[in-house]
Amino acid sequence: MPAKNGSQYIERINNNLPNVWLAGEQVKGAISEHKAFKGLMATQSNMYDMQLDDKWKAKMTYASPLTGDPVGLSFMQPRMKKDLAARREMMQAWAYTHHGFLGRAPDYMNTTLMAYSTAAGVLEEKTPQYASNLRRYYEYCRENDITLSHVYIQPKAGRLASLLGFLEHPAAARVTDKNKDGIIVRGAFLLDTQGASSDEILVYPVPHSSPDADDSPYAFAFAVPSNLPSIRFICRESFVGGESAYNYPLSSRFEEMDTLVIFEDVLVPWDRVFVCGDEEMACRLFDESSFHIHSCTQIMCKNIAKTEFLLGTIETMIDAAGLGSYGHVIDKVTEVIIALETLKALQLAAEKGASANRWGIMLPNRNPILATSAYFPTIYPRMIEIIQLLGASGLIMVPDEKDFETDISGPLNLYMKGIGLSAKENIQLSRLAWELSISAFGGRQTVYERFFFGNPTSVNNRLYHGYKGRETLKQRVQDFLFHS
Amino acid sequence: MPAKNGSQYIERINNNLPNVWLAGEQVKGAISEHKAFKGLMATQSNMYDMQLDDKWKAKMTYASPLTGDPVGLSFMQPRMKKDLAARREMMQAWAYTHHGFLGRAPDYMNTTLMAYSTAAGVLEEKTPQYASNLRRYYEYCRENDITLSHVYIQPKAGRLASLLGFLEHPAAARVTDKNKDGIIVRGAFLLDTQGASSDEILVYPVPHSSPDADDSPYAFAFAVPSNLPSIRFICRESFVGGESAYNYPLSSRFEEMDTLVIFEDVLVPWDRVFVCGDEEMACRLFDESSFHIHSCTQIMCKNIAKTEFLLGTIETMIDAAGLGSYGHVIDKVTEVIIALETLKALQLAAEKGASANRWGIMLPNRNPILATSAYFPTIYPRMIEIIQLLGASGLIMVPDEKDFETDISGPLNLYMKGIGLSAKENIQLSRLAWELSISAFGGRQTVYERFFFGNPTSVNNRLYHGYKGRETLKQRVQDFLFHS
Amino acid sequence: MPAKNGSQYIERINNNLPNVWLAGEQVKGAISEHKAFKGLMATQSNMYDMQLDDKWKAKMTYASPLTGDPVGLSFMQPRMKKDLAARREMMQAWAYTHHGFLGRAPDYMNTTLMAYSTAAGVLEEKTPQYASNLRRYYEYCRENDITLSHVYIQPKAGRLASLLGFLEHPAAARVTDKNKDGIIVRGAFLLDTQGASSDEILVYPVPHSSPDADDSPYAFAFAVPSNLPSIRFICRESFVGGESAYNYPLSSRFEEMDTLVIFEDVLVPWDRVFVCGDEEMACRLFDESSFHIHSCTQIMCKNIAKTEFLLGTIETMIDAAGLGSYGHVIDKVTEVIIALETLKALQLAAEKGASANRWGIMLPNRNPILATSAYFPTIYPRMIEIIQLLGASGLIMVPDEKDFETDISGPLNLYMKGIGLSAKENIQLSRLAWELSISAFGGRQTVYERFFFGNPTSVNNRLYHGYKGRETLKQRVQDFLFHS
Amino acid sequence: MPAKNGSQYIERINNNLPNVWLAGEQVKGAISEHKAFKGLMATQSNMYDMQLDDKWKAKMTYASPLTGDPVGLSFMQPRMKKDLAARREMMQAWAYTHHGFLGRAPDYMNTTLMAYSTAAGVLEEKTPQYASNLRRYYEYCRENDITLSHVYIQPKAGRLASLLGFLEHPAAARVTDKNKDGIIVRGAFLLDTQGASSDEILVYPVPHSSPDADDSPYAFAFAVPSNLPSIRFICRESFVGGESAYNYPLSSRFEEMDTLVIFEDVLVPWDRVFVCGDEEMACRLFDESSFHIHSCTQIMCKNIAKTEFLLGTIETMIDAAGLGSYGHVIDKVTEVIIALETLKALQLAAEKGASANRWGIMLPNRNPILATSAYFPTIYPRMIEIIQLLGASGLIMVPDEKDFETDISGPLNLYMKGIGLSAKENIQLSRLAWELSISAFGGRQTVYERFFFGNPTSVNNRLYHGYKGRETLKQRVQDFLFHS
Repeated sequence: MPAKNGSQYIERINNNLPNVWLAGEQVKGAISEHKAFKGLMATQSNMYDMQLDDKWKAKMTYASPLTGDPVGLSFMQPRMKKDLAARREMMQAWAYTHHGFLGRAPDYMNTTLMAYSTAAGVLEEKTPQYASNLRRYYEYCRENDITLSHVYIQPKAGRLASLLGFLEHPAAARVTDKNKDGIIVRGAFLLDTQGASSDEILVYPVPHSSPDADDSPYAFAFAVPSNLPSIRFICRESFVGGESAYNYPLSSRFEEMDTLVIFEDVLVPWDRVFVCGDEEMACRLFDESSFHIHSCTQIMCKNIAKTEFLLGTIETMIDAAGLGSYGHVIDKVTEVIIALETLKALQLAAEKGASANRWGIMLPNRNPILATSAYFPTIYPRMIEIIQLLGASGLIMVPDEKDFETDISGPLNLYMKGIGLSAKENIQLSRLAWELSISAFGGRQTVYERFFFGNPTSVNNRLYHGYKGRETLKQRVQDFLFHS
Repeated sequence: MPAKNGSQYIERINNNLPNVWLAGEQVKGAISEHKAFKGLMATQSNMYDMQLDDKWKAKMTYASPLTGDPVGLSFMQPRMKKDLAARREMMQAWAYTHHGFLGRAPDYMNTTLMAYSTAAGVLEEKTPQYASNLRRYYEYCRENDITLSHVYIQPKAGRLASLLGFLEHPAAARVTDKNKDGIIVRGAFLLDTQGASSDEILVYPVPHSSPDADDSPYAFAFAVPSNLPSIRFICRESFVGGESAYNYPLSSRFEEMDTLVIFEDVLVPWDRVFVCGDEEMACRLFDESSFHIHSCTQIMCKNIAKTEFLLGTIETMIDAAGLGSYGHVIDKVTEVIIALETLKALQLAAEKGASANRWGIMLPNRNPILATSAYFPTIYPRMIEIIQLLGASGLIMVPDEKDFETDISGPLNLYMKGIGLSAKENIQLSRLAWELSISAFGGRQTVYERFFFGNPTSVNNRLYHGYKGRETLKQRVQDFLFHS
Repeated sequence: MPAKNGSQYIERINNNLPNVWLAGEQVKGAISEHKAFKGLMATQSNMYDMQLDDKWKAKMTYASPLTGDPVGLSFMQPRMKKDLAARREMMQAWAYTHHGFLGRAPDYMNTTLMAYSTAAGVLEEKTPQYASNLRRYYEYCRENDITLSHVYIQPKAGRLASLLGFLEHPAAARVTDKNKDGIIVRGAFLLDTQGASSDEILVYPVPHSSPDADDSPYAFAFAVPSNLPSIRFICRESFVGGESAYNYPLSSRFEEMDTLVIFEDVLVPWDRVFVCGDEEMACRLFDESSFHIHSCTQIMCKNIAKTEFLLGTIETMIDAAGLGSYGHVIDKVTEVIIALETLKALQLAAEKGASANRWGIMLPNRNPILATSAYFPTIYPRMIEIIQLLGASGLIMVPDEKDFETDISGPLNLYMKGIGLSAKENIQLSRLAWELSISAFGGRQTVYERFFFGNPTSVNNRLYHGYKGRETLKQRVQDFLFHS
Repeated sequence: MPAKNGSQYIERINNNLPNVWLAGEQVKGAISEHKAFKGLMATQSNMYDMQLDDKWKAKMTYASPLTGDPVGLSFMQPRMKKDLAARREMMQAWAYTHHGFLGRAPDYMNTTLMAYSTAAGVLEEKTPQYASNLRRYYEYCRENDITLSHVYIQPKAGRLASLLGFLEHPAAARVTDKNKDGIIVRGAFLLDTQGASSDEILVYPVPHSSPDADDSPYAFAFAVPSNLPSIRFICRESFVGGESAYNYPLSSRFEEMDTLVIFEDVLVPWDRVFVCGDEEMACRLFDESSFHIHSCTQIMCKNIAKTEFLLGTIETMIDAAGLGSYGHVIDKVTEVIIALETLKALQLAAEKGASANRWGIMLPNRNPILATSAYFPTIYPRMIEIIQLLGASGLIMVPDEKDFETDISGPLNLYMKGIGLSAKENIQLSRLAWELSISAFGGRQTVYERFFFGNPTSVNNRLYHGYKGRETLKQRVQDFLFHS
């Protein structure tokens, strides 16, 4: 199956039947009907439908280099600047359907796998079979439009265990055995977003040091179907408020479940292994694939859609409450405007400044890319804070859609109007602002954005050490001081 | 009934049967058993029990000046510095039982009513009967330990209506008629916190200007039982996560419901009227009662308890995650420490600098009081942000208590440990941090604190214009410049 | 004289002999030799020399549409996108010679006058003679490479006088008379930067309302030579530290004097009058010339050069002090990196998004332009603060160049080394950081940047009200809420 | 000589004749007449005069325990709470004479030496002679009212040298030899504030680790006269603007020179040695003397006086410019008000919470003390920023006092008025604001405050690790979670 549509997506996920636990119960039956997954899957179904919709198809797909069939454009390896533009347009179109609330929309993982695949040449040096595995897996996902999830962070107990060896049962994820069929992996990973509602799972932790760096049990990368019996997904609490799109305009559509994934002696067949044992290869594949550059390029589309949605929301709130002439309100809106203009400009700068790497892959300019990955986590929480500051008690006093079906609709209609909005619309707007800035759905979004590409220390380090051009600037100052 | 105990509190509220609506349904039966009110009422029941508990009684009550019976100490009008100390000790004790999460613990309204009562002399000038009404109502509440709520903010539509007259049915709250039995009031008020679970309701809006300032329909203050048929309470969505104290350590205990209160031609008997028609009197009673000074003194106890709870939580999180040696972590904790020391010091300064007003009431020093009311709304959201920054993904990956009763308890116990904490304890700690910084309960707390005494503009204005001593400082600078 | 060189610039200014007062003394003799003006004029002389330098000439000049002679390229009215690129390259080249420390480099006023000239058509409607005056004055300045200054702000006393009429002698700048030779103007203007060292002065205040809006004495715009006897310039204290480029690397080169200009019944000939009496025309000429868009485009070049200089300085400081591995240091540098990438990206976005206005003038996209004018005043002080935070006591302990010529050079050389820098170089670097972040020169730069395009309220209002595209975003949110 | 007066102070310093270098020249003659020292010494002379002024004497001195003569009260070892109150009143009185601009007013070092003296018992354990030296030196300074300075920081090159050993001539300060007369010390120290204008110098670096911790050349503490031939002081650039108190109201009075002090084989007599060789003793004397607690108690007085001066200045600026009704102005002033109330409250809390240590010395409560030492460095720069934001271009356009003696006084008087201030007064106020927020004097004050008790990392660590009471708070949270 090349680029799939929504019902194909739903059907495959429903047939998948992974081992998923939520609040002490195992999830049974069609996952797309489960209240914790329903809205999200409907949203993604609509996105997949766009791929085969005549109006969108040309923008959303490209001809498979293998078969000529239309496949998802976010799988495309960019080789020219126009490829970057095509990728951006495709990803921006999807981002506008979810307004930036999906951190793991399908194009995220498509892009990630595409990035890794471009650097398969690294693996060629020592383990050509792994290089071939990676390329074939990329093709497999592209040609079958596989919905992927991704894990790379371990629970703290696991990380401490391997570093310090202070727990009886070492908890760090590791290869425990190898046999003719494959490698055996045991361990746990955190925050597998959409893990329970994906076809497959890509596992690629940052390896921690081992005494034997060439044969470390902690260095590995592979992919497996998510419905293996030896894999279990433990969900966090669901933040879906309910099915009413009036009451819960965001969580009823965009709540991506995060899971803890448990691998209990999972057999990974040899043809699904990309790295095994070699720390240096694990690191080099990661670095030379320019994972951060490619995935942040996708995320920029999301962030722009999200910031536009927040600005539109804020301006609508201002209109409804008649706040547009207050200086302190204008000061706050201009912060959001500056953020949006900044994000759009950095996106443009990244694309205009692109250049090809040694694999012939067209890479956006890393400077604006890394800058945006450090910038957005600081501005998103501020925008949410601005919603709190402008919404005030209107964010707290949120009646229910059903209140409008009862006797009390009278006073609600009388007292809860906005300027230019009926009471019912005005409360709907308040509920949107409430979901953004107060609800558990909104709180999780804020924390997710804060740590999207790691904690601030890591992200700032990545920018600082990856920044190109500083020598020129230092030299300019030294010339000014010492040679003029 | 003088100072009551918990079961008396519960019984009276359950017999009250006000007209309460939640999510399109009218609340029926014992309100203390309703899942949206149960935890809060159990918490307040424990607080009332302290009043008659031998260990606490001497601290929590004082002898009624009327009967000698023990009545709640937060009703006491302070006349000496030791009265302020006694009030502080009593209120701090209650604050430690709810760790500052109740904005409308009973001592808040007891203090508010006490404050108004001290300035009844203002009403004496023109309307001695109202002065007498106010004094008697204060005594009635004190002697019967009435649980009060309070409204003073109108929905925006109502406020705009009276100011601009642009709606067909004027929506501003107002006195529509007077007759021999009392005054008739129509209108709506916002954010009556705990309104649905209180005995009575005190209504005292900030009057907006009327053409006839001596007989304005918008200037009034009165109190009525909350179960009058012409009063309806419309609840916001409940933020109680559930009954499990493990999963929802805060909302299962401290969720105070906020309501929109609708007055539909409520008859207020003449002996419950404190102000009617006279704008100037409404304003003067408010100002000369030093409402803000007294109520902020109560709130300082709450804020200290809450900040201590946050600091204890943060330090426990740091221990469990082994973060205590990171510079950026220490920087953040010291912010919280500075906040706590500041709040405690301002409390001390307010009390030490107290002086008697013209009614003989001992007033804490307004300077530190008003400073704290402007300071806390800025630091509380920052402390919550610090919890997000330290908790990171641990705040998102929150399994359920029930997960520990199933097969998956094995991997949870293995992988989710903290330093010095079992996995179950560690997740419980995470759920506390999650409720504080991500859940709807936590979000509402943050917005509530931001706007506790009004929007920042009002609060800063109150501090700026109420600040004593600036002339001395200006003179010092002018002497330095022009006379030295 | 078409595009002039440095010595022509110096000679003309020296012959000009305006009436300039500094610290109670009238400035006599060649102004280019006066210690308060010498360094600045030498810097600008070098800039003018570039115009006729073979290496630079093609970039710095263009063929006059009138004569074909090379004239300064910043006078060019942009009609195509490539004109914007040429203007940017020219202005960026000059900005790199002064590293952004000149707020009134010649291209600033060249651009300003060019902007006004493009909207002369506005004046055509009622006063074609004024339109013609403006066009001819623009040509005159372009063809003779006139060095201009500019005033538009009045001292507060003057502004209050006209608004409130509370002073005996009305102090607001105004036209006091008109006769056959021209108009008579009296008043004072603030902050005429480089006023005392320019050929001419362009006067164009924001008119305040007058009872007669069609014949207001407060609505005028004109240009006059700066050496009229009835014009006096009162300088502020000079912030040139001294002539040593070692001790004062910045102020010895880049100190632009600000002046208070006094007009005492100045006769402005009719052919130098652009607006007189008509408030609406004064406003429309200002708005429709897109003054802010054009001048901010020039300022973007300055801001990028300045931010690059700060980043180069900060990185050199980090190297010299060995701070590059501290997390809190990296956090601070990344702030500066993000600022630089943001400014460069916004510059790109403005140029790429340009479109022609009704006069056929190619205008950069106003959204990123206005965003940058609100953004830079917030980030510049933060970058200077970062220098203080990284420099610490090294910024205070600044010995003198002459100390190295004495006995004490021994211990200085021993104890004051940096990593990779001799003591003398290390102290030179510290003196640069000191001038940026502590000296009066640096302090004035910070305040100048904070208020470059007005106070924050005005700048934010301009962005808020001038922002294009918000309706689309509001509609998207409303469609999402009410129509999906 | 017990408590001295101003002329005795001046005379002794002038006779002292230390070896001082400023801008490549050795300072000759009476230092009190030198323009870089004159104003500061006049200010301190006035302060010393207060000690013997009948109006102040009782507050400023106490009876020497040795002779009964009046000696400076800041030398007093506090043993009762009333001693703390007396010390505070004395120090606050001096602070009001310099409005907090002196970081090294005499009471700072008097307090520091007093603190060390209280812990002489530590030295008793191993080196009773040193304990006796310290006690006698304290008495000597107290009985002779010695004006002291203090060094403890080494230039970076010196610190790196000893740590890394990478320079040929080790630059770290150290004991190079010992003989029958004393110890020989070589090295350099940074930022000896007022070093060139003090009688003696106390040397007490933080020892860095040595291979032989019991006999480290880097562990020492001693005091010597500042006029030894083997000691040289190298001044930084002077930030005295000039002698006019109109033009330079602050720097003409309060500019404390900072120096680099060079010790070239200085012989320290044995009776002036307090620590020599023993790292642990050096650390313990420092810690157990509670140096930070005592000195920060003195500094709190300074900080309060300074904040009051800033608030008075800001309010005067607001009056003069008519800004008092703007919301954004009120927001900024309230920040300063909150800071002042916080500082005053923390001072009160420290004193009220005092308790005696094992030496019987009454110690203020460390929690508010350490909190204030971390808080003030963050708020001082913000208050200066607020002056910039409110002063705007008025801070840049600063004419000279002499301008009022010339022809141009006419327009100045007309145009530069403030509300309620003549032009001359208004400019004087602007010059004050300019010196605070723009001048090199002001810049040095800001950096000095930022790093007063070390860099933020050290200060926050000191607060974090020194904070008392956290266990109670953690336990409260754990009881709430796990035992309720």
